[in-house]
Amino acid sequence: MSILENNPYRKDFPLIDQIVDGKRLAYLDSANTTLKPLPVIEEMDRYYRAETSNIHRAHYWLSENATNKFEETRDKIAKFIHAPDRKQVIFTKGTTESVNLVAQSYVRKFLKAGDEILLSQMEHHSNIVPWQMAAKEKGIIIKKIPINQKGEIIFDEYKKLLSDKVKLVSVVHISNALGTINPVREMIKLAHTYGAKVFVDGAQSISHLPINVQDLDVDFFAFSGHKMFGPTGVGVLYGKEDVLNAMDPYQGGGSMIDRVTFEETTYNVLPLKFEAGTPPIAGVIALGKSVDYLNHVGINRIMEIEHELLAYATEKLLSIPGLKIYGTAEHKASVISFGIEGMHPNDIAFMMNKSGVAIRTGHHCAQPLMDFFQVPATCRASFSIYNNKEDIDQLYNALKKAVDLFKE
Amino acid sequence: MSILENNPYRKDFPLIDQIVDGKRLAYLDSANTTLKPLPVIEEMDRYYRAETSNIHRAHYWLSENATNKFEETRDKIAKFIHAPDRKQVIFTKGTTESVNLVAQSYVRKFLKAGDEILLSQMEHHSNIVPWQMAAKEKGIIIKKIPINQKGEIIFDEYKKLLSDKVKLVSVVHISNALGTINPVREMIKLAHTYGAKVFVDGAQSISHLPINVQDLDVDFFAFSGHKMFGPTGVGVLYGKEDVLNAMDPYQGGGSMIDRVTFEETTYNVLPLKFEAGTPPIAGVIALGKSVDYLNHVGINRIMEIEHELLAYATEKLLSIPGLKIYGTAEHKASVISFGIEGMHPNDIAFMMNKSGVAIRTGHHCAQPLMDFFQVPATCRASFSIYNNKEDIDQLYNALKKAVDLFKE
Repeated sequence: MSILENNPYRKDFPLIDQIVDGKRLAYLDSANTTLKPLPVIEEMDRYYRAETSNIHRAHYWLSENATNKFEETRDKIAKFIHAPDRKQVIFTKGTTESVNLVAQSYVRKFLKAGDEILLSQMEHHSNIVPWQMAAKEKGIIIKKIPINQKGEIIFDEYKKLLSDKVKLVSVVHISNALGTINPVREMIKLAHTYGAKVFVDGAQSISHLPINVQDLDVDFFAFSGHKMFGPTGVGVLYGKEDVLNAMDPYQGGGSMIDRVTFEETTYNVLPLKFEAGTPPIAGVIALGKSVDYLNHVGINRIMEIEHELLAYATEKLLSIPGLKIYGTAEHKASVISFGIEGMHPNDIAFMMNKSGVAIRTGHHCAQPLMDFFQVPATCRASFSIYNNKEDIDQLYNALKKAVDLFKE
Repeated sequence: MSILENNPYRKDFPLIDQIVDGKRLAYLDSANTTLKPLPVIEEMDRYYRAETSNIHRAHYWLSENATNKFEETRDKIAKFIHAPDRKQVIFTKGTTESVNLVAQSYVRKFLKAGDEILLSQMEHHSNIVPWQMAAKEKGIIIKKIPINQKGEIIFDEYKKLLSDKVKLVSVVHISNALGTINPVREMIKLAHTYGAKVFVDGAQSISHLPINVQDLDVDFFAFSGHKMFGPTGVGVLYGKEDVLNAMDPYQGGGSMIDRVTFEETTYNVLPLKFEAGTPPIAGVIALGKSVDYLNHVGINRIMEIEHELLAYATEKLLSIPGLKIYGTAEHKASVISFGIEGMHPNDIAFMMNKSGVAIRTGHHCAQPLMDFFQVPATCRASFSIYNNKEDIDQLYNALKKAVDLFKE
């Protein structure tokens, strides 16, 4: 039976079938943050109720138990993304911190004035600003990889931008604002022929595409727990071992040191070298359950479901007069960014909320992309495995009503 | 009735009365992380079950609700530490990140070669290494404020170290490894006469002493949620407004920007200027409940309870032959760092665990302090409001047994 009619995953997500603010909730903002399945919520609760302890630092049962569970998540993540070694999985507070870590500890150390960094026009601010901050300090040049009107990277233009001066390419795997799936494997291959490293922002792809960092041959790959059915405040940076080893530590503090004196301090090895201070313990432990859940459903099944949701929603939305979709790439994930002629996106969002429809409106932290499409903002509906036909129909009906009201 | 005999707060902490690993748990590691009271655990659970949403970015009920609760915690923290304005409360992932933020965004920007930073001999690695990293890069000189055998800062030596060259003093409010309460108010006053800024590491003091940042006149004050009955992965940096405004942003990304183009990016105002990316939303929201809980018990009551626990435990422990307490400061919080003649601290911890006693053993992320006392490690028992006589007796009996076993 079609997932649109009977979605067996909804029951795993306690929020999805609730009445919120007196209305049936149609949660269509999963690209912003995903809802959490029960095993993740319950693991977090178990840690705080029955297993609270700091990790890596004490010799009693609670602490050893928490440390083991924390490190088990590292194993699960390593396996999930096919990392060659668990020590290449660094826990951060999210994708944004992962980018900043590399900008500080790699770019500031290894790039010099005149070197170039390539970023695409569709990047999230978190994949622009950290590089800009390092670039400004060091005299590094940032160049923009152009996109076409469908919201796809223009591969020929990318080729032209590559040269021996390019030391880093950073590109989003799936655009949060458009849904475009970028050809990162081909981009990486080409960048490597010039000796450039490649950072892939996987915040949107980690729970929507199979990720194999070895097959991609990517140098850095980053993602956030809260966009993969996991907790807020935890994320991951994957890096190639030799590169991570060559980098300076990012933050100083406990765990990341080997020996501290006032005269000289030596640092720990991977992965703790990059994990200063008490980490988000509960978050990392619960993230392990997110990975289990993703494996339980299966990434291929997730792609099938999302494809069905996207196709149905696209058809419905395009039947609304004056509605324009931004982002019509051939390879596209379950995101629909749209506007309606003559209506301000904020007014649309306001009316959606009145009908219990949760979509995001704004620049989606991608102002350069909004500039490209010459809009201040778009509305964005994004879908995940817990959505169904009713959710999309609720969006469609609310939009119809808004358009009709607006015409009056 | 004495808190030792009848502790009304134990019932609020689900972990405290459990059998863990088959034994009655005596949790005496609160300086490492505190247990969590029910309202904190339940708030976290509520967010994930019924209120999951990203914040600051969307216009629907769930998002506005989460944003409001997130920002309410900022208000509660501001009030709790008597900050002049809520925008001076910056959410970080913990004390360690707060120190790193100031090292990067203040020290790297404003200090120059030859300038001096003063740190005490008893600092946690997180209050040494970030300054060392910035100092190494900029040619800044770090000097050590000496301590005496009781584990107190030698104030006269501190005075002698101060000069116009000193631009920053960073000192721990309560030593995690000794329990010493440092005279930070007097230290700040004196430092200010030389124009130096003062950073106070409040990780251990936030839930043990009344904190009034205005009365202290402190320039920066940092602490962690997980040591104040709150979640892991969230902390706070307080700073004076003019100083925070003058600083560069720390991490780049969403929320911390005003306007992003490839040519130029401008930044947001306080507090978001320092809060790039999706923050630990659930953690911050639940932290609000920690503050409520601290207010409900009352800091003065907490100090009374801990004083009673410390006095009883100190007397009991000192009756054990060969036991030496490190840290006998006149002003001392509820921490007892100790060793037993002829026994390795790790062996003691091993035997404590066999008896269900959770204490920490190691260098407590304070190797320079261990060097001062010429020990590789100490055992540390630390107390919080949920401890009672039975916990301390369990520690005492286990230590007695260990000593007797060792003598055979």
